[in-house]
Amino acid sequence: MNQNPVARLDGSVRVVGAGLLGASIGLGLRSRGVDVILADASRAGLSLAVDYGAGRLPHEGDDPSVIVVAVPPDATASVVAAELAAFPDATVTDVASVKGALLTELEHLGTELGPVDLSRYVGSHPLAGRERGGAIAARADLFIGRPWVVCPRPEVPRERVVAIEHLILDLDATPVTLPADEHDAAVALVSHAPQVVSSLMAKRLDGAPSSALALAGQGVRDVTRIASSDPELWVQILSANAPAVVDILRAYRDDLDAVLSALADVEASGARRAIAQDLAAGNAGVAGLPGKHGQDRRYAGIVVMVDDRPGELGRLFTELGEIGVNIEDLRLEHSPGAQIGLAEIAVLPEVKTRAIEDLSARGWRTAG
Amino acid sequence: MNQNPVARLDGSVRVVGAGLLGASIGLGLRSRGVDVILADASRAGLSLAVDYGAGRLPHEGDDPSVIVVAVPPDATASVVAAELAAFPDATVTDVASVKGALLTELEHLGTELGPVDLSRYVGSHPLAGRERGGAIAARADLFIGRPWVVCPRPEVPRERVVAIEHLILDLDATPVTLPADEHDAAVALVSHAPQVVSSLMAKRLDGAPSSALALAGQGVRDVTRIASSDPELWVQILSANAPAVVDILRAYRDDLDAVLSALADVEASGARRAIAQDLAAGNAGVAGLPGKHGQDRRYAGIVVMVDDRPGELGRLFTELGEIGVNIEDLRLEHSPGAQIGLAEIAVLPEVKTRAIEDLSARGWRTAG
Repeated sequence: MNQNPVARLDGSVRVVGAGLLGASIGLGLRSRGVDVILADASRAGLSLAVDYGAGRLPHEGDDPSVIVVAVPPDATASVVAAELAAFPDATVTDVASVKGALLTELEHLGTELGPVDLSRYVGSHPLAGRERGGAIAARADLFIGRPWVVCPRPEVPRERVVAIEHLILDLDATPVTLPADEHDAAVALVSHAPQVVSSLMAKRLDGAPSSALALAGQGVRDVTRIASSDPELWVQILSANAPAVVDILRAYRDDLDAVLSALADVEASGARRAIAQDLAAGNAGVAGLPGKHGQDRRYAGIVVMVDDRPGELGRLFTELGEIGVNIEDLRLEHSPGAQIGLAEIAVLPEVKTRAIEDLSARGWRTAG
Repeated sequence: MNQNPVARLDGSVRVVGAGLLGASIGLGLRSRGVDVILADASRAGLSLAVDYGAGRLPHEGDDPSVIVVAVPPDATASVVAAELAAFPDATVTDVASVKGALLTELEHLGTELGPVDLSRYVGSHPLAGRERGGAIAARADLFIGRPWVVCPRPEVPRERVVAIEHLILDLDATPVTLPADEHDAAVALVSHAPQVVSSLMAKRLDGAPSSALALAGQGVRDVTRIASSDPELWVQILSANAPAVVDILRAYRDDLDAVLSALADVEASGARRAIAQDLAAGNAGVAGLPGKHGQDRRYAGIVVMVDDRPGELGRLFTELGEIGVNIEDLRLEHSPGAQIGLAEIAVLPEVKTRAIEDLSARGWRTAG
């Protein structure tokens, strides 16, 4: 019998580690009516997450059916082993970004500490996060629509894998099955190498003259946005996935050397063509990314000029409400010193034309 | 006497090159009532821009006071020289992204073709653009609030520089005076090197398995967004600014080699620390970028939960207006399917505490 009427999951879920991911998992499962037990090495962090509504404190006799280990990467293996030992019936998963090295470490712990029952362990990895960490940044909707990789192994019974898939579906994420090595190669490409590329570009900006930084536009801001991520966390991730990351960065470095050679003598035969080919390959790479990309195709954009004084945005959004247009997403572009801001508003495509007409009739300056 | 009542500019402006920048300049000046004459080597491109309202076709006897050359970088020098010769009273500027090599080329053309009157030439560069090119992507508001670098030289009379500053101010951009070499070093850092870094990362994605690309999140999308830029245009820009770009990319490559060495043996003494230091330097680089977006130090952030229905954002911003709080920047985070959005609002630090108190008193759920 399922205790959680609107959840696929059966029974209680214990979440170890009440940071961004753990607390978000707790919030998401609580909204489904699941009994969530929170644990964290930090009492302050734990009580914050409990206050936040992400779950309850552990009780004597708790018998969770699923345990999610959401602690820093370097601590994951030992916590997974301890949870497997402490709760002999539970299915245990973790959310660490690198799966192969973790499994090796778990197998090694088994020989060191005595048997670790890995037939109840199913590694997983949600592709979701925020630049800000901690329970305070947690959101019940963090995983909605995001891929969540599950790495089953042949020796794990099918029902254990299903339990983790139910956890993922209850958080409105999409389970994706991949072997650990394929997962690690994939995240090296789409997450870990881009982190290094971005951080090293941002390092070039450090200490640059303010007259140069004043010319920065959206391009360099986008390239370096993830360079604001936590160094301590990322050293752990990059170290755990070092061989796969090195493979990609070596190929990147070879391309960079070729561009440097071409730029050092741009008049040489073939130099410009070589650079153009790399840039064109970059075009193809971006085009191959699935789904949205800045311009979310489900929505249409409207740009409205807004005077920079209190109440003007309020008037705009009040009037959008009056004409019955819901704002699906928005962004304010506002340059220092400018007296006008641009509100970029995403609306459903079918209301765009009418919204522009109605706003123009009310005196707003708009662009498609 | 100023013919253009709401413009600082006096007289007609001739814009040569009716692409994204030229047509946007035309649209912006037309909205100020300026007479804009458009010219383009492509008749189809020209008539599209005229239909778009960016200006009119040239007439016999046109006597523009200012000419803006907005053609591809490789063609800029010869077109500037031709315009200086054809219109012996006009002040001529251009919008090319690299100023030093262009000036050298202009001086060289002078010796080749006979005198080019460079005392009427003032190079400039608007830091504005879009990934989409062509007149069809043009926007009258493209330059609002953006820096627009002016590179005056000692031999140019002050009134020629003022004419170009008036053009810039009439487009609501911010004139920034920089010598050509400082400009070129600055854009190498904040624009040209990031373009190469982004394109080469995107090249790694080209041909990757779709199972890997399916895991791509916002991070890699941001890092590679500008990699969708036009290769032909960018070969010209990178070639024109090659020495400055090479300086930055060589330092970048050295850092990358150091990270590769550290990752190749992460257990070696100091390896993890070396990686962490580079990541921390990246943090510092991002934090040093001026202005909005995320970590703007001049502003304090408030996060407000907003129900997803028409009028709610309006109510929030109206109430912010009522309590006298101006919104310096904002971003709406909104996940598909979620019933609540998060409005991240940037305010002046001194009003943050009061804004949170007043909003809470009115029933809004907020976080610092």
